[in-house]
Amino acid sequence: MVKIGDKIKVFAPATVANVACGFDVLGFAIDQPGDELDLEITAEKGVRIKDITGDGGVLPREAEKNSAAVAILEFLQHINADFGCDIVIHKKMPSGSGLGSSAASAVAGVFAANSIFGAPLSKEELLPFLLSAEDAACGSAIADNVAASLFGGFILVRSYEPLEVIQLPIPEKLYATVIFPHLTVLTKEAREILPKEIPLKDSLRQSANLGGLIIGLQTSDYGLISRSLKDYIAEPYRSKLIPGFDDLKKAITANGGLGGSISGSGPSVFALSTDKDIALKIGEEMAKIMKARNIDSDIYVSKVNTQGPKVIE
Amino acid sequence: MVKIGDKIKVFAPATVANVACGFDVLGFAIDQPGDELDLEITAEKGVRIKDITGDGGVLPREAEKNSAAVAILEFLQHINADFGCDIVIHKKMPSGSGLGSSAASAVAGVFAANSIFGAPLSKEELLPFLLSAEDAACGSAIADNVAASLFGGFILVRSYEPLEVIQLPIPEKLYATVIFPHLTVLTKEAREILPKEIPLKDSLRQSANLGGLIIGLQTSDYGLISRSLKDYIAEPYRSKLIPGFDDLKKAITANGGLGGSISGSGPSVFALSTDKDIALKIGEEMAKIMKARNIDSDIYVSKVNTQGPKVIE
Repeated sequence: MVKIGDKIKVFAPATVANVACGFDVLGFAIDQPGDELDLEITAEKGVRIKDITGDGGVLPREAEKNSAAVAILEFLQHINADFGCDIVIHKKMPSGSGLGSSAASAVAGVFAANSIFGAPLSKEELLPFLLSAEDAACGSAIADNVAASLFGGFILVRSYEPLEVIQLPIPEKLYATVIFPHLTVLTKEAREILPKEIPLKDSLRQSANLGGLIIGLQTSDYGLISRSLKDYIAEPYRSKLIPGFDDLKKAITANGGLGGSISGSGPSVFALSTDKDIALKIGEEMAKIMKARNIDSDIYVSKVNTQGPKVIE
Repeated sequence: MVKIGDKIKVFAPATVANVACGFDVLGFAIDQPGDELDLEITAEKGVRIKDITGDGGVLPREAEKNSAAVAILEFLQHINADFGCDIVIHKKMPSGSGLGSSAASAVAGVFAANSIFGAPLSKEELLPFLLSAEDAACGSAIADNVAASLFGGFILVRSYEPLEVIQLPIPEKLYATVIFPHLTVLTKEAREILPKEIPLKDSLRQSANLGGLIIGLQTSDYGLISRSLKDYIAEPYRSKLIPGFDDLKKAITANGGLGGSISGSGPSVFALSTDKDIALKIGEEMAKIMKARNIDSDIYVSKVNTQGPKVIE
């Protein structure tokens, strides 16, 4: 039984959403970065943010505007908990990075709460709280980042009503490179830059490639994955918000990568490869391209993270 | 070696294109109906249509407007044939049926020609001629019907430039029911009724379902196939051209079918099921619904046809 003063520390991974041809419906988790969250059970009900580290003071400290606090609060209400909790969030990626920052915090929060209460709910049952959290933090209840961070792996959000998330198989050799250039692209701004209506032709091309990517993942057909990594919907607009984007894309194929695109709403950019050395090389080259523009960046290379959140203390 | 007077008779299957969530990119072949074509080698070059049976005199007899003749002519030019041919086309479905009528004739034609010349070209190499044929007959070079009829099975057209067609696995229990109500919906008219631009939201829902259907086919997950058989793009508009459409759809689920939608541009409607008896029952009920509206119809029930065209004489 949980009691006042019980503590837990949890890690939840960053995620790459959209994945070129899967706007708002595809996502995958990576090993690093990821947010950490300390949770302590309190007698007082509700959720209080005691501190947020690593955000430069940017994130709101009010519980109702914070994705982790919103998710935890919904969880506590759902299980009729007699307790509340204090949390400290350790941000390892800024909001506006395109790496599912709010999602990682929310997943860490709700996974911490569920774990400390003895896991009364399944991951599937936690998902609705995470959608509320995304809505509170980003103004839209999009499931791709939260589902990828929560379940780990490569996911397809097949439907929102009802919510259905499908895990896709991950080919053995697949490596991801992610560059986070130190620029901020706000999700809201990146959404507003997109047209509300798109040519039917682009919709068809996009969905054919989504089909191709899924088949490629299912059958470990790296050539097919490569040919399918195209985005006709968001990239043409959002790439304008990322200086040097065309050069980053060229660096992917020039160094033997399968392809890539904007991660989430940017400015992070991801690449997929079939080899760790290629993935590292792409990261190096991308960092150079940004450096030449006087933009610092972080590079992350890993396989797809299949574990999702984990208790670290 | 082929010589003057050599003859061949070929069958090519009808096809269901779009398949609810795969507008212009998905298609599958069925056992019946299908067009037959007689081809005879002549000394005179070019292609001559000696007769078309079963079309009520509707189809053009000029070679350059006929899908079969166009496809054969392109083939003959490609292989620098020293001969020409006379053809007789036996239509088993009218044009404007939504069953890929022009595609079946074209596939029968080009497969007959390739076969009689000793199969110098692979099916993949025949595909471009079939696109030209579709363009000549329907005014648009869409590959879903021709690829499904040519390769058989369930196909995804991943890309047009370059053309890439992917075969999807077919779950063992899958049965198709097709009703062809004796109404005419011209492909051109059915295309013009569609908006040129669609809401981004609909594009996402559609492509998520295409992903779901592909995963369902890959994993024989009939529940997922059922949930994914939704069309947000064409059905809302084209269903208005089919009297009783809502009742037909209700008959599918009411009788245990997985789901269905308009076949191609209609007026034919398809359903998928996991059992032959269910598939037959759905066909019966659909025919009754049309009969109550004084519309005669043909019902076809089969597994997905995996063979494609075949030489019958």
